[in-house]
Amino acid sequence: MLFDITEYHLRLKKTKNAMAEKGLDILIVTDPANMNYLTGYDGWSFYVHQGLVVFQDQEEPIWFGRQQDSNGAKITTWLDASNILGYEDYFVQSNTVHPYDVVAKLIASRASKAPRIGVEKDNYYFTAQCFEHLSKGLPNARIQDGGLIVNWVRCIKSKTELTYMKMAGQILENVMDTAVNLIEPGVREGDVAAEVYKAMIAGTPEFTGDYPAIIPIMPSGKRTTTAHLSWADRSYQKDEIVLLELSGCKHRYHAPLSRTVITGKPNTELDEISKTVINGLNTVVDFIRPGIQAQEVEAKWRQAISGSRVVKESRIGYAFGLNYPPDWGEHTISLRPGDTTILEPGMTIHVMPGIWTDTLGFECSEAVCITETGCTTLANIPRQLFVK
Amino acid sequence: MLFDITEYHLRLKKTKNAMAEKGLDILIVTDPANMNYLTGYDGWSFYVHQGLVVFQDQEEPIWFGRQQDSNGAKITTWLDASNILGYEDYFVQSNTVHPYDVVAKLIASRASKAPRIGVEKDNYYFTAQCFEHLSKGLPNARIQDGGLIVNWVRCIKSKTELTYMKMAGQILENVMDTAVNLIEPGVREGDVAAEVYKAMIAGTPEFTGDYPAIIPIMPSGKRTTTAHLSWADRSYQKDEIVLLELSGCKHRYHAPLSRTVITGKPNTELDEISKTVINGLNTVVDFIRPGIQAQEVEAKWRQAISGSRVVKESRIGYAFGLNYPPDWGEHTISLRPGDTTILEPGMTIHVMPGIWTDTLGFECSEAVCITETGCTTLANIPRQLFVK
Repeated sequence: MLFDITEYHLRLKKTKNAMAEKGLDILIVTDPANMNYLTGYDGWSFYVHQGLVVFQDQEEPIWFGRQQDSNGAKITTWLDASNILGYEDYFVQSNTVHPYDVVAKLIASRASKAPRIGVEKDNYYFTAQCFEHLSKGLPNARIQDGGLIVNWVRCIKSKTELTYMKMAGQILENVMDTAVNLIEPGVREGDVAAEVYKAMIAGTPEFTGDYPAIIPIMPSGKRTTTAHLSWADRSYQKDEIVLLELSGCKHRYHAPLSRTVITGKPNTELDEISKTVINGLNTVVDFIRPGIQAQEVEAKWRQAISGSRVVKESRIGYAFGLNYPPDWGEHTISLRPGDTTILEPGMTIHVMPGIWTDTLGFECSEAVCITETGCTTLANIPRQLFVK
Repeated sequence: MLFDITEYHLRLKKTKNAMAEKGLDILIVTDPANMNYLTGYDGWSFYVHQGLVVFQDQEEPIWFGRQQDSNGAKITTWLDASNILGYEDYFVQSNTVHPYDVVAKLIASRASKAPRIGVEKDNYYFTAQCFEHLSKGLPNARIQDGGLIVNWVRCIKSKTELTYMKMAGQILENVMDTAVNLIEPGVREGDVAAEVYKAMIAGTPEFTGDYPAIIPIMPSGKRTTTAHLSWADRSYQKDEIVLLELSGCKHRYHAPLSRTVITGKPNTELDEISKTVINGLNTVVDFIRPGIQAQEVEAKWRQAISGSRVVKESRIGYAFGLNYPPDWGEHTISLRPGDTTILEPGMTIHVMPGIWTDTLGFECSEAVCITETGCTTLANIPRQLFVK
């Protein structure tokens, strides 16, 4: 196991406490990161329905998933084999039966007549169909939103979690170096992306890496005017902007970061934007400390860039950590007006004030961990526009 | 654009025909592969809510997504800019508002008072929360399951699609060679995975590759007893089985395949299983042709392996093609009892009779395209157990 059993027990206890506050007898956990966090389960099996059923009054959660993945649950979780429930293969992508018929039966056999059940209602892997089959199978249950319960428990990282995130940060330093060094006019974008992938997974001489929850985001030219395009089948040209939003990953823990490269001389617009954003980022990283609200960080940024040509209407950061595709964000804290979360030591935030105008993009971000007195970065990479 | 505009129009027409058969005025498309198929949209933005609204009585669908991704829609789709709707950033992961509030408003402003709306009810990206907000915002609408409508249209590939899949097959040949050549006792699993990733993305001298919808699945030893684990931070040992389920990808079209390596001499169990499975696979690939039912293919397999020690209760294959994480499968055809789909030329099927017992795993599969007279493979890789 990657964590001491006492750490898993503590996570489960915190989860059950949060369930109790909401009056839940049962929580169905479908977020693969939450499944991993509570039990260690790790596999690319989330393309079929799977999850945990956490009963308030039972010691261990029950893992459910496809039969052919149940040995994976035995290998990667701390759960007793009796709490691993593989459903038959004919439930997979069927137009007559659904895995949540099995989940409903399981709950009916173990719970009170009218249990109060929390479900992760906006999680990618809890579809409208899951809700429908669960409700139909448990007509007396009171099913309510229990989304983000485990995500909020995940917000504050333990010492071991931070160790893995710093390992991810070490990988990230290699990854970012690789990308910045290789980008040149005439080089194929896919060849740079290939070396970026290799660096992410090969890791360091001491440890190898894991796949991040988001692909390397590395668009060039016109494609930098938006946030989530990536490499294309072409070669870099002279005087092109290249955005790099990349991450190291170790044991599913991330260290994301973005930087920008230009293959030539920056024009006035890019020059001004890059200086404003880097100054704003520096101000924010110096400002972040425990006891302040998430929205205060955003206000500090807004103040730092005021009077410049930079317009930034979207959030400037979010909590991140352990995750699976499609996102390394935790969907809890956002650095934006209205988010009154008070920052605490052990929280990890990607301060990401990406700028995408109709003519260009610029990204320079920092992944920070909140300490007792301020914050530290997970990787040491110069905050600059890289001119090649 | 990767396809002629007439091809996109044809896809949309087929979709509207299928909508009409189900009496739908509107179809909300959330599957990223379906979005790409109908409009060309391509970006790693599916971690926030996005989709297409296809109106039966309007020429073009409407793309909706996060504001910062709307330039991505302008760049990658054939849609008129007036049909690209970016919602404000405060809708992202909010606990007060939801992107489907925006979708409901859009529909209310353009549709009849009580439209019949299809939604992809079991798609990863259509959560229970999406359904709830849509229903609440459109109290008079009749919302029903419209899942897989576009997936079924996607089933038969065009000439251009098959060209991309054959390119993916070329990449796959390099990828599989790379893995088989590098696996040796003493080599770190992550170092082989790193080279596999590099080969997937670097592609060929003529074209680079794209990221497949599933990571390289390459577990070793005990971890081969289940279907979806992958590399670990350790070195290969002598006499270990390594499963390889890998794919090439070009323009989001896949060519998946699995093979098995052993670093030493196979024991009797592996020897018997590998011979039985390879014989069964050969029989099935020779048998596949247009006009037969999917379940007949499975029956042929079952007959071929009868009397052996191989037990295979899960489906032995599925349709695949264009896709995004977490799955390259199309969720339409499954090679299993009860699937009466009649095979047609242009369908692409991953014949994947993976075996996972409590002691070992063995995989040998083939990705085939159905032709007028039989089927062809997308890549040319020997069907054997690779003994290293």
